[in-house]
Amino acid sequence: MSEKALAYLKENREALLKRLNSFLSIPSVSTDSAHKNDVQEAADFIVTYLNDIGFEKVEKQETGGHPLVYAEYNGAGSEAQTVLLYGHYDVQPVDPIELWDSNPFEPELRDGRIYARGSSDDKGQVFMHLAVFEAYMKTEGKLPLNVKICIEGEEEIGSENLYTILRDKKELFAADFAVISDSGMVAKNQPTILYGLKGFTGIEITVQGPDHDLHSGMYGGAIRNPIMALNHILSSMKNEEEVITVDGFYDDVEPLTDGERKLIAEVQGEDYSQATGVTDTASEKGYTPKEHTMARPTFEINGIYGGYQGEGTKTIIPSSATAKITCRLVPGQDPDQIQQLLKQHVIKAAPSGVTVEVKKEKLSAKAYKVEPNHPLIQKAASSYTKAFGKETVYVRMGGSIPVVEWIEAIYNMPIVLLGFGTPDDRLHSPNESFPLDSFDKGMETLVYYWNKVNER
Amino acid sequence: MSEKALAYLKENREALLKRLNSFLSIPSVSTDSAHKNDVQEAADFIVTYLNDIGFEKVEKQETGGHPLVYAEYNGAGSEAQTVLLYGHYDVQPVDPIELWDSNPFEPELRDGRIYARGSSDDKGQVFMHLAVFEAYMKTEGKLPLNVKICIEGEEEIGSENLYTILRDKKELFAADFAVISDSGMVAKNQPTILYGLKGFTGIEITVQGPDHDLHSGMYGGAIRNPIMALNHILSSMKNEEEVITVDGFYDDVEPLTDGERKLIAEVQGEDYSQATGVTDTASEKGYTPKEHTMARPTFEINGIYGGYQGEGTKTIIPSSATAKITCRLVPGQDPDQIQQLLKQHVIKAAPSGVTVEVKKEKLSAKAYKVEPNHPLIQKAASSYTKAFGKETVYVRMGGSIPVVEWIEAIYNMPIVLLGFGTPDDRLHSPNESFPLDSFDKGMETLVYYWNKVNER
Repeated sequence: MSEKALAYLKENREALLKRLNSFLSIPSVSTDSAHKNDVQEAADFIVTYLNDIGFEKVEKQETGGHPLVYAEYNGAGSEAQTVLLYGHYDVQPVDPIELWDSNPFEPELRDGRIYARGSSDDKGQVFMHLAVFEAYMKTEGKLPLNVKICIEGEEEIGSENLYTILRDKKELFAADFAVISDSGMVAKNQPTILYGLKGFTGIEITVQGPDHDLHSGMYGGAIRNPIMALNHILSSMKNEEEVITVDGFYDDVEPLTDGERKLIAEVQGEDYSQATGVTDTASEKGYTPKEHTMARPTFEINGIYGGYQGEGTKTIIPSSATAKITCRLVPGQDPDQIQQLLKQHVIKAAPSGVTVEVKKEKLSAKAYKVEPNHPLIQKAASSYTKAFGKETVYVRMGGSIPVVEWIEAIYNMPIVLLGFGTPDDRLHSPNESFPLDSFDKGMETLVYYWNKVNER
Repeated sequence: MSEKALAYLKENREALLKRLNSFLSIPSVSTDSAHKNDVQEAADFIVTYLNDIGFEKVEKQETGGHPLVYAEYNGAGSEAQTVLLYGHYDVQPVDPIELWDSNPFEPELRDGRIYARGSSDDKGQVFMHLAVFEAYMKTEGKLPLNVKICIEGEEEIGSENLYTILRDKKELFAADFAVISDSGMVAKNQPTILYGLKGFTGIEITVQGPDHDLHSGMYGGAIRNPIMALNHILSSMKNEEEVITVDGFYDDVEPLTDGERKLIAEVQGEDYSQATGVTDTASEKGYTPKEHTMARPTFEINGIYGGYQGEGTKTIIPSSATAKITCRLVPGQDPDQIQQLLKQHVIKAAPSGVTVEVKKEKLSAKAYKVEPNHPLIQKAASSYTKAFGKETVYVRMGGSIPVVEWIEAIYNMPIVLLGFGTPDDRLHSPNESFPLDSFDKGMETLVYYWNKVNER
């Protein structure tokens, strides 16, 4: 029953792109309270669309923060599978705005891509699902499976209220499996199933030295420089071979099997150096860059500051220095325990003459991994292959999607991570975009997949 | 002939403090072009004062930047000594303004101190010289020695034009000796002669990684983090025992003699921990904090920045990181060569996957040292002791005054560093202040000294 739906998508492509553009035009920046009404407007857009399609119980659920859009479709009958579809309609801020080649909220088609904030992460991919449901309803009068919709507006600010809602309304969101399209393919038009995601945790270290900035001539030689102290602490946490040297950090890491190394080696990933402009890649001793990004934990300093940052010179010993650190974790590692290990290491490594404060990042998540041979994964892979005309690859990725951990923890249901982004999409950066190829073939994939999930 | 001058200073104390306040009220911040007219006004204040006193050839010399105030007094006759008096009328910026307890440009007397930007560095001390000259002229009708005045407006921005002027107008500024009051005592009311100053140089290191900030999940494990790379580089330059580990850094350092160590040990310096609020001092292995600050070279990171500095977390690998470094040098060390050694070390220490740029600080200066037994030093010391009622101590200090190196290089004349600041003055920081005790007894010291310099 997929041919008609496919034909509908082709025939109505212009209208769908136009409707997508109106969605992308809403500056639903969740972190910025100035955009509060825009976030509501983006939620209303989805509510309207779901009502147009014919979903039931369509509602904006209050969360305490930005609303969550819920809806149900039960027309496939009690024998059919029910999917919980998760996505988010909020977007990252656009700064630095001067680096955008076109207005982030006036979508522009250039070189086969839709340029707009949220085009890839995640409004574009949410829209594809809605369009596919529309196509089925308009042509067949029904969907091939039952659906529960969970599209939130707080993903870019850490899904602050989602966990509580999923836990407290367990019955409402219960389903046979979950699908999330908030990720990407390893290369453009390369069907990719994500079967593992990294977990996430972090700390912030502040080294306090003197109680005010000191003249470096009067006190240099008597007072420990807090920036240098911070440097010594941080240098002791990861060495130049990219090995994390925090005691116990790797203790619970599941070793990478030969089978997985083979799977990873088969992935035609992007050229990291070319994509990022570096002279050379750098990865953990004993692992390739692909292995490290996909399946080994990481330790990154996301930001550092202390002392004078202006033009020229200011000859001070600054009073303090701060570093922000996050780690991506792999299956086996417990975020709370890792935070504890990091904190212990920092306190032990701190030299005399300074005091050290370690703040623990509140948002943490465990890593996630599903068996690549699961039938629902296999059906997604074959749909993918059919739409893109290319064998699907199976990858683990370095990113973290906290909702994946939560859905697994609360519902213990299989989660299919079916993403259509590409490495060139510049998520969270200026000039975010999404390929029209992904838009077209991604919808085709979904058409095949929904049609296939009930097959035995 | 000093009694009348001393009496004059006592009788006119209120009027002098009032005039000082009007000088301190001028926001002559040399680094900020918004204060250009204020800097001129401060120069005009000195011009007016010098004319009032009866100096000759009083003029604001154009420098290309802020003006230099020049004047002469030749009334002491050709047999008398001529002093070149150097000082500066410009001040540091006041940021962070919210940390001041009173307006930095509305001088306030609290607890025996004058609170104002420039009260200690260096307007207050310049003013004391002018007041002492006034006292002699009003009471004796002449000064005990000939004087050349050189008060510049660019000290806080590195005395950009001074070297060229001193070199090109060698005849104009020639004198028998120089006096500079732009330094401090080791403790309040502890007469202190500075017989050595450190030199100065610096570099700025920028580590460039990817050409834009990267998603730490997508690229963590493949791309070298430039902040961590910078940390590794900096950590390799000074160890936790405060020993600078840059090859060749100490090669030309004159060893500290037992005699000097004894002199330093005799100095009742400030309590470094108490003055700065640190838990403990930290100094080079094998040297006391006093020895290190006074007589051993230093390496300080004055500022560092890279990546995300806002609230919360941003999971990026930043594109670059920068550190600002300055060194204080001791006799024997050549600033250019030290810059070269630092640069070589940084380039050698840089890990793969990043590129490193090293900018050399333009302003450098060699260290300075004079023989403590020089008669002009001894006369200053005895004047100091007479005014403060306490034995004078001889110290080397960690600060750098480039003009000292230049006067020595161009004129090869003895330089007497006669400063009345105290360790609690908070130079360059919020709540800069200067003790009234230093104001009164400092002027008394100058009265005695000028009276004594011509004695055989």
